[in-house]
Amino acid sequence: MVRRVIGIDLGGTETKIGIVEEDGKIVEKKVIPTRVSEGRTTVVTRIGEAINELLVQSGIDSKQIIGIGVGSPGSIDHDTGTVLFSPNLPDWSGFGLAAMLERVTGIRTFVENDANSFILGEWAFGEFKGSQHMVGLTLGTGVGGGVITHGILMTGSKGYGGELGHTIVEPEGPVCGCGSHGCLEALASATAIINLAREYSKRFPQSTIFASPEINAKVVFDAAREGDLAATLIVERATRALAIAIGNFIHVFNPEHIVIGGGISRAGDLLINGIREKLPAFVMTSFNGTFSITLSKLVENAGITGAASIVFYRTS
Amino acid sequence: MVRRVIGIDLGGTETKIGIVEEDGKIVEKKVIPTRVSEGRTTVVTRIGEAINELLVQSGIDSKQIIGIGVGSPGSIDHDTGTVLFSPNLPDWSGFGLAAMLERVTGIRTFVENDANSFILGEWAFGEFKGSQHMVGLTLGTGVGGGVITHGILMTGSKGYGGELGHTIVEPEGPVCGCGSHGCLEALASATAIINLAREYSKRFPQSTIFASPEINAKVVFDAAREGDLAATLIVERATRALAIAIGNFIHVFNPEHIVIGGGISRAGDLLINGIREKLPAFVMTSFNGTFSITLSKLVENAGITGAASIVFYRTS
Repeated sequence: MVRRVIGIDLGGTETKIGIVEEDGKIVEKKVIPTRVSEGRTTVVTRIGEAINELLVQSGIDSKQIIGIGVGSPGSIDHDTGTVLFSPNLPDWSGFGLAAMLERVTGIRTFVENDANSFILGEWAFGEFKGSQHMVGLTLGTGVGGGVITHGILMTGSKGYGGELGHTIVEPEGPVCGCGSHGCLEALASATAIINLAREYSKRFPQSTIFASPEINAKVVFDAAREGDLAATLIVERATRALAIAIGNFIHVFNPEHIVIGGGISRAGDLLINGIREKLPAFVMTSFNGTFSITLSKLVENAGITGAASIVFYRTS
Repeated sequence: MVRRVIGIDLGGTETKIGIVEEDGKIVEKKVIPTRVSEGRTTVVTRIGEAINELLVQSGIDSKQIIGIGVGSPGSIDHDTGTVLFSPNLPDWSGFGLAAMLERVTGIRTFVENDANSFILGEWAFGEFKGSQHMVGLTLGTGVGGGVITHGILMTGSKGYGGELGHTIVEPEGPVCGCGSHGCLEALASATAIINLAREYSKRFPQSTIFASPEINAKVVFDAAREGDLAATLIVERATRALAIAIGNFIHVFNPEHIVIGGGISRAGDLLINGIREKLPAFVMTSFNGTFSITLSKLVENAGITGAASIVFYRTS
């Protein structure tokens, strides 16, 4: 019988829920507003209701579901499914998310950090499915990291590991949200790109970036693609920071594959080629030919299937 | 019956060999010149003879030895015990060291990179024996790294992983032997400290560093301890680089313990306090209280016992 799980991509704004089969096929899905301000109990109850509706719609009994996987922002204690700390889910610190979702649904529940869920999704359904040595980076509002090494999802002693976005690539670089200077996140996240664009507005007032009603990462990448100088400088800086950081991860993990996802990965060739061009300066030649670096191909439903893969990983 | 192994600390200049018991006790040991220039076959034959002598001296039959562990410089394929690449052992690339040592001795042999062997030694016999999440740094001529994560010695897909000394902490910093700029090794190895001292000789000709007949890391640390300005600047720079790198490893691995060994660790308090003071600037507060950072207490025989621990790890 085909194994089915529920994948939940818990976001600060919206939550995506889907019934997912072992091959990654989404049987049914639903997007609901998260409404964090209404409190964690209400949020989880609403998620429980949405799961019920999905099961009814698809005619699947909850007993046929082998588990629920939740990809959540923040640091997670994945043994207990407790949210340890999450900037996007204030007052969820110490919240036993898995335990409450289990009470509401009667289904065994596993929770992982969303970047860990991303790399598990690659491990389960991605281009390099089954690879035992992969590094994942999610480039969005922040920069998340997930690592599979020797077939194990590496989370460290307390579940805080894999914070690749907060490794430092420019010790004298811009201040990061975490308080340090020059973290990868302070140079290559959407937030960093927007901040840098704002700084450049005085020096490059004619840049096409500032002709746009809103400054965001897409506007900057689009302008760079058209040859805009300010945008090109910003993209160069972000891709250089990524090349330095990825070079470090290659030396540390000797991975087979580095996979990049998240909203910024939609920048496509401009992003990946920028990184690939700069990478050789930061990697010892003995590593040549040991790794690939690519953009994730699981764009559309990556959040749901990644969350679903947590269950397949934990029960494999 | 007590389990006994042979540990071999293979160095560019000398090779230390010992019979080691499960509790780390060295029954008998011997130091022989490596004489790399005489060729790898001669070197291994000489090691085989030394092992025989040790067994005869201690009245132990080779059948009572459960294995030989070799800590070797360079990148090692630990599945086959082949030296992939080693700057200190030229023309050993592709050499099946384990296979040849097995032929010579008749004893099952395991080979690991010497920095991996260092952290396995900590895992087997160190202050935090048995910890499942440890990062080791060996500060000597170069900077080596070894990582145990989730109880596994992390070596990556081809055995090249754990090259912590070649992660970049100052992208505009001094050139490293590997060709990159600002690797940890280019800032915190004995070589880096000596290079920096030489650069400072024009600006600080009266520094007590230059009163010494030879410039080495010990001279610099001793001068810094006496308040010498040039020496203090060098030690500050090295400990800052270590703090940045260790901060990165904490975010990546969320280890319980970071243990520092190698010749430079003899600088003691000046080194460890310098790192500890600077570290908080580079680590997110959510990691507070999750790790310890200490100097290895296994100084004298660390090479032999570390090599021996490879066998205990592989057969555990």
